[in-house]
Amino acid sequence: MAVLTVPANAENSPAVACERSELYAIPFRQIQKNVKRKPTPSPLLYAGSETSADQFYFTHFLAGDPFIAFGAGRKRCGVFSMLELGRAQKESSLDIILPLTEWQKRAKRYASDGVAGPAEVIKALARSYKIRRFAVPSNFPAGLLLKLRNLGVQVDVADGEFFPARAIKTPAEVAALREGNRLSSVGFRVAERMLKKARIRNGVLMLDRKPLTSERIRFAIEIAILEQGGVATHTIAAGGDQACDPHCAGTGPLRANELIIFDIFPRVSATRYFGDMTRTYLKGRASDAQHALVDTVRAAHKLGVKSVKAGVHGTTIHNKIVQFFKDAGYVTASDEKGTRGFIHGTGHGVGIDVHEAPGIGVRGTPLRAGHVVTMEPGLYYPGLGGARVEDVLLVTKNGCELISKHSYRWEIA
Amino acid sequence: MAVLTVPANAENSPAVACERSELYAIPFRQIQKNVKRKPTPSPLLYAGSETSADQFYFTHFLAGDPFIAFGAGRKRCGVFSMLELGRAQKESSLDIILPLTEWQKRAKRYASDGVAGPAEVIKALARSYKIRRFAVPSNFPAGLLLKLRNLGVQVDVADGEFFPARAIKTPAEVAALREGNRLSSVGFRVAERMLKKARIRNGVLMLDRKPLTSERIRFAIEIAILEQGGVATHTIAAGGDQACDPHCAGTGPLRANELIIFDIFPRVSATRYFGDMTRTYLKGRASDAQHALVDTVRAAHKLGVKSVKAGVHGTTIHNKIVQFFKDAGYVTASDEKGTRGFIHGTGHGVGIDVHEAPGIGVRGTPLRAGHVVTMEPGLYYPGLGGARVEDVLLVTKNGCELISKHSYRWEIA
Repeated sequence: MAVLTVPANAENSPAVACERSELYAIPFRQIQKNVKRKPTPSPLLYAGSETSADQFYFTHFLAGDPFIAFGAGRKRCGVFSMLELGRAQKESSLDIILPLTEWQKRAKRYASDGVAGPAEVIKALARSYKIRRFAVPSNFPAGLLLKLRNLGVQVDVADGEFFPARAIKTPAEVAALREGNRLSSVGFRVAERMLKKARIRNGVLMLDRKPLTSERIRFAIEIAILEQGGVATHTIAAGGDQACDPHCAGTGPLRANELIIFDIFPRVSATRYFGDMTRTYLKGRASDAQHALVDTVRAAHKLGVKSVKAGVHGTTIHNKIVQFFKDAGYVTASDEKGTRGFIHGTGHGVGIDVHEAPGIGVRGTPLRAGHVVTMEPGLYYPGLGGARVEDVLLVTKNGCELISKHSYRWEIA
Repeated sequence: MAVLTVPANAENSPAVACERSELYAIPFRQIQKNVKRKPTPSPLLYAGSETSADQFYFTHFLAGDPFIAFGAGRKRCGVFSMLELGRAQKESSLDIILPLTEWQKRAKRYASDGVAGPAEVIKALARSYKIRRFAVPSNFPAGLLLKLRNLGVQVDVADGEFFPARAIKTPAEVAALREGNRLSSVGFRVAERMLKKARIRNGVLMLDRKPLTSERIRFAIEIAILEQGGVATHTIAAGGDQACDPHCAGTGPLRANELIIFDIFPRVSATRYFGDMTRTYLKGRASDAQHALVDTVRAAHKLGVKSVKAGVHGTTIHNKIVQFFKDAGYVTASDEKGTRGFIHGTGHGVGIDVHEAPGIGVRGTPLRAGHVVTMEPGLYYPGLGGARVEDVLLVTKNGCELISKHSYRWEIA
């Protein structure tokens, strides 16, 4: 994969203003709505959009290597190397596309060694676009912040969410999230089919004369999702005690009469939005204790869904679930005997990041209409096993709407 | 997918010292070798290892959400939520695993609102481990840097590579990179098979009675790589003028007698190291101009491979290729007629990141034995098409060793 350098005899290339109708492009006005400081500082980003959801949200341009994007008045601007210039003009939702080589030349005079890096280029942009003050997200690169301040560029580092509008989903974003969850459901169907077909030999699940392992079932799930337009990675297919580490992906043969957790969070390739669902299964016969565990988690899940509504605080909902498990006799603890009980949050926002605002946990935030969150209570007891059920909800004024859909049947004969 | 919160009744959990033999774990001594400041500041990271290669390199623990890792004396330490604690003990190469909940309690007194975030936790760790000064990478979160400084924690922001040792590959790392390139080659074989089987109708490639599109061929490549233990995303399968945007992934039906660029950079799932190879093909009959273009790129590639050797500066090699293309009459320019010629760098390091140090371009660095770099000259002329050939080389004292292998045949009848 090629990486930029300035070509030997690059010519100046003019700024290109382009208009595109982008389904997912949020009006800049709306993005800036919640910025309180006056005069409103201009947003500034320096990141690859492959890893920075803010950068993707602002530019709708997908690139692995970091690039500069900023707001100037009501325009969104991006600066691109020759390598990305053409693609940025075609694919991004930016209003103004600027050629990096040209701006590196203009910024040379700010560089002590005559070679302009991103800091010098940003200074040149600030002067040309008459930007007096930038706002950057809290995960902006520290090295670049210090260089900008050394160059006399005014930069505020935002605390909390950089684009609060990101948490409030548009109808198009909700549709993209629905599609992500549809892909999760595709994965569960693959898992169910394999568990159903499996035979039990000496307590181990066998399929096509070979042990049915976490790896095999994960692979089948991820292939099926790829075929339908998504990319699922780190899919969890973990049985028995492995499932008691909630992020353990699972390894080795799956066993009969053990709880098996499947957590599938695919990214839709076309939109980059995620699905995120979890179901717990058991092949064979469940014990009374396993029944009680799964029933309690399912009841907590129902209670959680019923509690979600605009205006309710995430921590209130989380505390309700914590209390519910406690009342049901399920202890949460971490000591010399290990970590057990309800050891994670009740939910989190989902969007271009699989974990984003708002939070439904100890450090929750108030829910607002348009938030999309997971509801995923779980209980984990090494020896007994783990159970988790996870759906995705759109928060509404009067409650919530499930935007994930899959059966909760869990015992497979 | 679950996210951390502090459980309702978490008990203190002691620090766990663990020893593991990790193939890819680099001795901390070696990581710190190139740090010049005395007394050596302790490295400090706050990032998810899914996106931060430095974090993965330091901890060998894969997590999406950010976590704290730092060096204390000769020990590598990491701080984990209850959600990740068990997995960190089993999977990471850290010497000391600390429970976040416990340290949040200890750090409470530094928090103005009584809720300790990462800054307060790091301050508590610095006091307990008697760390006078931290070093953080240049992409450390700016917001956290400012909070640490407000709390009186001494932090240096590193300029350039944070772990210079990362660029020098161990034999195990070279083996992992070879495997990545083997997966790229698996992808080329799929592409070749499909192009060979395709028939031409009205200038369009047809396979199984349907147009052979970039999307179909990319999907087949990515499935084959998944089956062999890798994840390839953004695989480039771009024909004609599309290939003149070197990062354009390609879309729609492929055409006969057009150059088609395949750039395949899979990540090996087991090790997280990448392969990165490019081949250019043409189905049908190439024109004289296409022949000349491909021959020139291939000759530049050979010249580049011959030029790689420990001690040579990356920019020297890049300039040689630039001059070679110029002498051959291929102009590089970006003006109102568009961007064309040799519009990217000659090569880049490959490792846990697909683009990492060293650079072989305008901003190159001297090559050292143990560096692993791509060699990928390319030429792009809208109307004529694009050609690129890319291999991966291990830099040695006396030259280099190809660690990617695939035929250069490009015309497919």
